[in-house]
Amino acid sequence: MVNQVNQPNQFNDFSMGKLTSLLALLHNSESVKEIEQELTSRGYQYTVGKVGAMDLSKVVSAIETSAKSKGIVNANSYREVHALYHAILEAIQGVGRGTVQFGDILRTVGLTFSIVRGNIDFSGYGGEWISVCVYGTIGAPKKGFEHDALGFGFNHI
Amino acid sequence: MVNQVNQPNQFNDFSMGKLTSLLALLHNSESVKEIEQELTSRGYQYTVGKVGAMDLSKVVSAIETSAKSKGIVNANSYREVHALYHAILEAIQGVGRGTVQFGDILRTVGLTFSIVRGNIDFSGYGGEWISVCVYGTIGAPKKGFEHDALGFGFNHI
Amino acid sequence: MVNQVNQPNQFNDFSMGKLTSLLALLHNSESVKEIEQELTSRGYQYTVGKVGAMDLSKVVSAIETSAKSKGIVNANSYREVHALYHAILEAIQGVGRGTVQFGDILRTVGLTFSIVRGNIDFSGYGGEWISVCVYGTIGAPKKGFEHDALGFGFNHI
Amino acid sequence: MVNQVNQPNQFNDFSMGKLTSLLALLHNSESVKEIEQELTSRGYQYTVGKVGAMDLSKVVSAIETSAKSKGIVNANSYREVHALYHAILEAIQGVGRGTVQFGDILRTVGLTFSIVRGNIDFSGYGGEWISVCVYGTIGAPKKGFEHDALGFGFNHI
Amino acid sequence: MVNQVNQPNQFNDFSMGKLTSLLALLHNSESVKEIEQELTSRGYQYTVGKVGAMDLSKVVSAIETSAKSKGIVNANSYREVHALYHAILEAIQGVGRGTVQFGDILRTVGLTFSIVRGNIDFSGYGGEWISVCVYGTIGAPKKGFEHDALGFGFNHI
Amino acid sequence: MVNQVNQPNQFNDFSMGKLTSLLALLHNSESVKEIEQELTSRGYQYTVGKVGAMDLSKVVSAIETSAKSKGIVNANSYREVHALYHAILEAIQGVGRGTVQFGDILRTVGLTFSIVRGNIDFSGYGGEWISVCVYGTIGAPKKGFEHDALGFGFNHI
Repeated sequence: MVNQVNQPNQFNDFSMGKLTSLLALLHNSESVKEIEQELTSRGYQYTVGKVGAMDLSKVVSAIETSAKSKGIVNANSYREVHALYHAILEAIQGVGRGTVQFGDILRTVGLTFSIVRGNIDFSGYGGEWISVCVYGTIGAPKKGFEHDALGFGFNHI
Repeated sequence: MVNQVNQPNQFNDFSMGKLTSLLALLHNSESVKEIEQELTSRGYQYTVGKVGAMDLSKVVSAIETSAKSKGIVNANSYREVHALYHAILEAIQGVGRGTVQFGDILRTVGLTFSIVRGNIDFSGYGGEWISVCVYGTIGAPKKGFEHDALGFGFNHI
Repeated sequence: MVNQVNQPNQFNDFSMGKLTSLLALLHNSESVKEIEQELTSRGYQYTVGKVGAMDLSKVVSAIETSAKSKGIVNANSYREVHALYHAILEAIQGVGRGTVQFGDILRTVGLTFSIVRGNIDFSGYGGEWISVCVYGTIGAPKKGFEHDALGFGFNHI
Repeated sequence: MVNQVNQPNQFNDFSMGKLTSLLALLHNSESVKEIEQELTSRGYQYTVGKVGAMDLSKVVSAIETSAKSKGIVNANSYREVHALYHAILEAIQGVGRGTVQFGDILRTVGLTFSIVRGNIDFSGYGGEWISVCVYGTIGAPKKGFEHDALGFGFNHI
Repeated sequence: MVNQVNQPNQFNDFSMGKLTSLLALLHNSESVKEIEQELTSRGYQYTVGKVGAMDLSKVVSAIETSAKSKGIVNANSYREVHALYHAILEAIQGVGRGTVQFGDILRTVGLTFSIVRGNIDFSGYGGEWISVCVYGTIGAPKKGFEHDALGFGFNHI
Repeated sequence: MVNQVNQPNQFNDFSMGKLTSLLALLHNSESVKEIEQELTSRGYQYTVGKVGAMDLSKVVSAIETSAKSKGIVNANSYREVHALYHAILEAIQGVGRGTVQFGDILRTVGLTFSIVRGNIDFSGYGGEWISVCVYGTIGAPKKGFEHDALGFGFNHI
């Protein structure tokens, strides 16, 4: 796309992980378009979704299902599903901070997640990687009694 | 500042946690100015710093020292230091994903951290809160053999 | 109260945390009265309750509900509920020792909990703090196949 | 001892774990004598000591060494040392709350520890058990910037 | 047994833990007979069983029940059940790697477990010990989307 | 190799993970030759090494260095080193059981480690995987005051 070549944006030298994080954080904001443009220009695959639950397994499932149904990972390749799964768990550890539990310790989450997959080629890198960012709220199941939470996972795929 | 009143930006309804996260992620980018403008217009105090180390205690110390020296927290108030300390630990848990260890398990980090403090006033909120975001790389002590890492902590102060 | 001034007791210089712990440990003992007297003379708010369950979320809920219904924390202030919640989690970590799980790993608890809130004023302290102690038994769901457990959490409020 | 038979005290039906906890919490208080009396009348072996350090291994070592030198455990029996070691680790988990680290995350402890060993004989119990309680302060290496901490471990020996 | 004296096998100097691990790993293989022979010749008690579940508590329960019903531990002795329980938890930590959760994070296990109890007599050892090995698969609830997992626990009894 | 085709052994249908575990457990035993034969016949790359240390980072480093120097992974490919690193950490979690710490909690390890890399091709599998098994002793830095420990990690590469 000619425009992309001609109009370098401030995101050109952002890492895949940074773009993934901004994709979740800026979801529904105007400036997310530039992020998406950058991802597309690099040939990265990505998706964004939402999940709210007290049940931890539903959160894992929602992110995993979204990645499969959007074709970010091949649902028939254990290899790819394994890479995704560990990236999801890592992201959830950032949300849980110390213990990977939600409803068990009486807290609920409302999360926006982003998943990005693509080639990285410099230094020791090479081949495809996948990153997952989860951003939203965690807290009591009562409106306003919750605060921001953020988690990020990264894996080779 | 008249302009701020007249020119609403896309960040006006961002939570304190989201602004804190963007402050770290967009550090050294053009668009971080709008984030800073928004923080200032809300009367929030904030700072951004960097730390690179294999020694976990140096990372904790660097963030804590920065918050004190920039006056984000009162170094003579245990109450404020206690609030900050737990927010820092939470953020580092997101970076460590599962175990709060760096050099002990042979990995090093290069991090940009942001600290924001301010009043939040809606629902059950009220009074001041503090949030810490840590963004950077984690990996082997070898150029390029590292990937993105992200953590976030939040506390009442 | 004149008597309190005239009859200094051995608990006069006990920290808030020590008094909280003794309140749970000496519950239903004669000597708990002196502890309560000391708490009252300092203007501290406190409560003691009991909960038995395999379900971890019920334990968290019972302590939280007790603190709210007894007015130790204001149920409409997220700030106060947030402080309480983290103090409860810390106390439960002492009971769980390594993993915050009860029924999931086939163990049940029978606990007495104490919650104390009050001003502390020395050194960097200042303002109110909250402490939670949980004491009781943990073990198999079979009479006698259980042993003592103890946990303690502390937070600014 | 005739007196003990004639003068039942409020501690007669306290569990070994409760007595261990009170031994640490009431150390240097008047009422600890009654606890010690009760322990002695049951034929329990016990000791109390202190340790202050940022270095976690020093804390483990101090408690272990004290138990050996006071003859609470036989230093030449791996079996007994193994039982003690796990009870110590459990107690330290209560102090650490979530992560068993002190200096690594820039915090120091000043602790009083109690170790009790003895026969328990009811229900499924039978044979000897060992319990460890650790009580003191945890916090920044700065006077007053620390708060109470408490941990407890229990094992068959 | 004359044969055993005359025909020393390669397992004669294997530790109890190594034999326990091989008992689980070589289950249903020819060479497991030599392992069993060695265990028997030492007078060790042992059993092997299987459990498949997403529910962690069912896994703990299956191993515990097997040990009791086969008489490896005395179900009426809390002391023995306590020793077994902690050995089981340790083994499961190896399977879980970082978090002791199965279904909660959307993974299921199919495990073969071995339990061995017996006297060890050298160095500081003396008296009976119990070891538990758990070997099998962990993964998504989908045929083939799982990989090997292994855990081991050891305790004095 | 004709012999291998003609003489099927009991290990023919063992998974890569099981072979990896037996490689560590049977190291220096006669029967390890059959395991090695099986690994070779499948075209798997493998190595076995030893490391003893109180310092956790030395253990991680020894395993990582061995894998690189034996060419199991390409030291210049971050992708491969990343896969190996996480497999090592998983294995060490089984050894640590609950906390990934050795000297910090006053324990030392003497370990034999095995690393196997190769193609797996069935179900969702496909492509190369790497597995690490760590077997040895953990305990006090005193001869005989230690017991068996075992850990296992697995990753796509």
